[in-house]
Amino acid sequence: MTKLNAAARQLISSGALAHLVTINADGSPQVSVVWMGLDGDDLVAGHLNPAQLKIANMRRDPRVSVSFESDRANPAGLREHLIVHGTAELTEGGAAELLARLAKTYIGPDAVFPPMPNPPAGLVARITVKRVTGVGDWK
Amino acid sequence: MTKLNAAARQLISSGALAHLVTINADGSPQVSVVWMGLDGDDLVAGHLNPAQLKIANMRRDPRVSVSFESDRANPAGLREHLIVHGTAELTEGGAAELLARLAKTYIGPDAVFPPMPNPPAGLVARITVKRVTGVGDWK
Repeated sequence: MTKLNAAARQLISSGALAHLVTINADGSPQVSVVWMGLDGDDLVAGHLNPAQLKIANMRRDPRVSVSFESDRANPAGLREHLIVHGTAELTEGGAAELLARLAKTYIGPDAVFPPMPNPPAGLVARITVKRVTGVGDWK
Repeated sequence: MTKLNAAARQLISSGALAHLVTINADGSPQVSVVWMGLDGDDLVAGHLNPAQLKIANMRRDPRVSVSFESDRANPAGLREHLIVHGTAELTEGGAAELLARLAKTYIGPDAVFPPMPNPPAGLVARITVKRVTGVGDWK
């Protein structure tokens, strides 16, 4: 059963930036703004560089939050936004292919990404959705 | 000494939404998308309802992160964004006045906010900037 309705899926697939929150070893928050897409009912992000802080954080504590801005406002004038809470699972490889797909949305249909001839395999973070909050028609 | 340069101050004052990250009691991340402005070198946000989860979180653990999207892209086509790491201090009162000021930016110059005749005093979260990251000319 998916926890994402059609409006949430549309926003996530629209090229809206994903504010990915992980937890540092000392318990403080860490934020990265990344590209993210859907794969079935999960959110997926590709990371070419496995040495990043957010990767170490997700390995240690898979609990993540991801927020997306909508370009719509509610009747009070507040901009809508979607917040997804879930758990991340990391799998080796697949980052370049995923980023190439996402670049078509985030940059444009002719985008060539990653911008190097032999990109590293990297890894993919797959986020299982546990709970959805925010302001908008997400439920 | 401020840790925010002119470009960062401009973005924060531009009406960009603030993705405010706090830490839940169980160590998991919590995200709220809020209005935020500058007061001197600090970031400030007004909260009419002190019973919110993010308020309890900041009382227990003042370490927060705040991310903002820019509408500019870097040469690789990646959208710029600013991430501020800091510590939050809560003070009683002042929320309605601050929100009325921020509404002029976030909604429009004629905005009347809060949208009720006698808004509660609420509280203000003042964030002291410790560190700035992200993609853009923030240093």
